[in-house]
Amino acid sequence: MFDYLKTTEEALAAYLPLKDCREKKLIEAMQYSLAAGGKRVRPRLVFEFNALCNGFPEGATPFACAVEMIHTYSLIHDDLPCMDDDDLRRGKPSNHKVYGEDIALLAGDALQTLAFEIMTNDKTAELVGEKACRQCANVLSRYAGANGMVGGQVIDLLSENTDAPIEVLREMDYKKTACLIKAACEMGAISAGASEQQIKAASRYGECIGIAFQIKDDILDVTSTNDELGKPVGSDNDNNKSTYVSLLGVSECAKLVNLLTENAVEALEYFNGDINTLKKFAYELAERTK
Amino acid sequence: MFDYLKTTEEALAAYLPLKDCREKKLIEAMQYSLAAGGKRVRPRLVFEFNALCNGFPEGATPFACAVEMIHTYSLIHDDLPCMDDDDLRRGKPSNHKVYGEDIALLAGDALQTLAFEIMTNDKTAELVGEKACRQCANVLSRYAGANGMVGGQVIDLLSENTDAPIEVLREMDYKKTACLIKAACEMGAISAGASEQQIKAASRYGECIGIAFQIKDDILDVTSTNDELGKPVGSDNDNNKSTYVSLLGVSECAKLVNLLTENAVEALEYFNGDINTLKKFAYELAERTK
Repeated sequence: MFDYLKTTEEALAAYLPLKDCREKKLIEAMQYSLAAGGKRVRPRLVFEFNALCNGFPEGATPFACAVEMIHTYSLIHDDLPCMDDDDLRRGKPSNHKVYGEDIALLAGDALQTLAFEIMTNDKTAELVGEKACRQCANVLSRYAGANGMVGGQVIDLLSENTDAPIEVLREMDYKKTACLIKAACEMGAISAGASEQQIKAASRYGECIGIAFQIKDDILDVTSTNDELGKPVGSDNDNNKSTYVSLLGVSECAKLVNLLTENAVEALEYFNGDINTLKKFAYELAERTK
Repeated sequence: MFDYLKTTEEALAAYLPLKDCREKKLIEAMQYSLAAGGKRVRPRLVFEFNALCNGFPEGATPFACAVEMIHTYSLIHDDLPCMDDDDLRRGKPSNHKVYGEDIALLAGDALQTLAFEIMTNDKTAELVGEKACRQCANVLSRYAGANGMVGGQVIDLLSENTDAPIEVLREMDYKKTACLIKAACEMGAISAGASEQQIKAASRYGECIGIAFQIKDDILDVTSTNDELGKPVGSDNDNNKSTYVSLLGVSECAKLVNLLTENAVEALEYFNGDINTLKKFAYELAERTK
C-alpha cells in the first residue's frame, strides 16, 4: 500500500536540502518547521484524490509538498509576536523562539516562494504537463491569498473581542481552514488529469470536511477535558471569541458536522475508483475525540 | 510611444480592486504599499525586454505587475520592527505604522501570493501560452526565494556589525538586489517567446545593471551631501556594515560600475530589435547623481 506519509516526509526533505551556504540559518529555520509536521492531512488529500483519478504518486508529490509548505509558512507567521505570540507549536519551541523573529519571518516568506517554485519547475511540468502545473499553482494561490487563507486570518484578527455572528464565523472558517484543504483536493484531481466535474466534486469534498473539521474543533474545545488541569482544553478561545458552539450549542453543532460529512461523502459519487479511504477519512475526522 | 508607467499603475490597481468585504483592511494595506511605488524599474524592464523580443504589452503586463508585487511585499516585511524597523518608506508612513504589524505582515504575505496568482491564471495563459506562464512563475520564484532575494536579506542580516569581505558583499548584493532585476528581464523575454540565447542575454543584462545599481548606491551614499543637514546621506550604513566603497574606495567602485554597465550593454548585442532604450537605461543608472 502506498505510504503517503513516508513519501511526503522524504519529498519535503529532498526539496529543501541543507547545503553549506551563507544563508544556511534560513534553510535550517525552514526545515525546522517543515519537519515538525503533524498528520500531513493536506498532502494526504492530494495523494488520495490523485490516486482516485488514476494519477500516480510522483505527479502528486510536488503539489502535496507545496500545500504543506503554504500551511507551514502560515503557522510560522501566525506564531510571531505581532500575531498570536505563541512560544510553542506542536510541543516544540516555535520558529522565532529558536531562530529569532527576523529569520522566522523570512523563513515563512521563503517557504511560500518554494511552494510555487516546486509546482512550476521543469521536472513537475514533465510529470503532469504544462497546463496541470499552471492550474495547480493558480488553485493554490487563489485559496492561499487575500480571498482565501490570509483573508480568513484577517477576519479572525478583526473579530477578536467581538461577538462575531454566525455568518462571520462561517466565512472565517471557510477561508482560514477549509480553503487550503479544498486546494489540496482540487490539486490532487488536476494533477491526475481529472474532468471538470471531478475537480468540482473534489473541491466540494474538501470544503465540507474543512468546515466540519473546524466545527468539530470547537466542540472538542468545550467537551474534552484536560486531565492534568481538570478544565476544558480551550485552545484559541481565550479572548471571548464567538465559536460555533457558543452560538449554536453542542448538539446543533454535532448535527452540522454530520450533515457536512454526509455532503462530503456524497461528492465522492462522481468518481469511479475506490472511494472507501476518503469516505473513511471524512467519518474519522467527524468522529475524532481529540 | 508605449507608456509603461501608466500601464503598470493601471494594471496594479485593476489586479487588486477594493471591494466591500470583511477583509477590506487587508486589501487597503496591500493597495497602500503597491500604489506608493517608485520608478517601477522592474516592471519597466519586463516591458522593455518583451518589446525587444517582439512581444506585446498585454502579454508582459501580468509579469510586470508580479515582479512589482514581490518587490513591494519584501519592502513591507523589511520595514517591520523585527527587521529594519523603519517608520517611513518613500516619505510616507510604512505599512505597519498605518495598518498595524499584524495586517502589514499579512499584506506582505498576500502580495506574494497574488504575484503567483496573476502569472498563472487562465487569462495570462491565453495571452502567452501555458509554458511561458509556468516558466515565468518559476523564474520569479527561484530569484525571489531562499536562493535569491530572501537569501540575500538573510546574508544582509547576518553580516550586520561584521566586517564582511568583498565576496560576501558581492553575493548579498547579487541576491538581494540583482536577482529580482534579473527575473524581470528574463520574464520579459520569456513572455515574448524569445530564444534560450536571448533569455540568457536578458538575464546577463539584468544581473550586470542590478549589481552596478547597488555599487552606485554605495558611492552615492558617501559622495552626495544632504543640503539640509550638511552631511553625507547615509541610507543604510548606520551599523558599521562593509560597503563596496569602504572596501575598495570610490574610484575603484566607479570603475566597477562602468565595467558592469559595459557588460550589460554588450549583452544587448544578442537582440535584433531597437536596443537604444535599454542601452540608455543602463547608462542612466550608472551616471545618476541621486
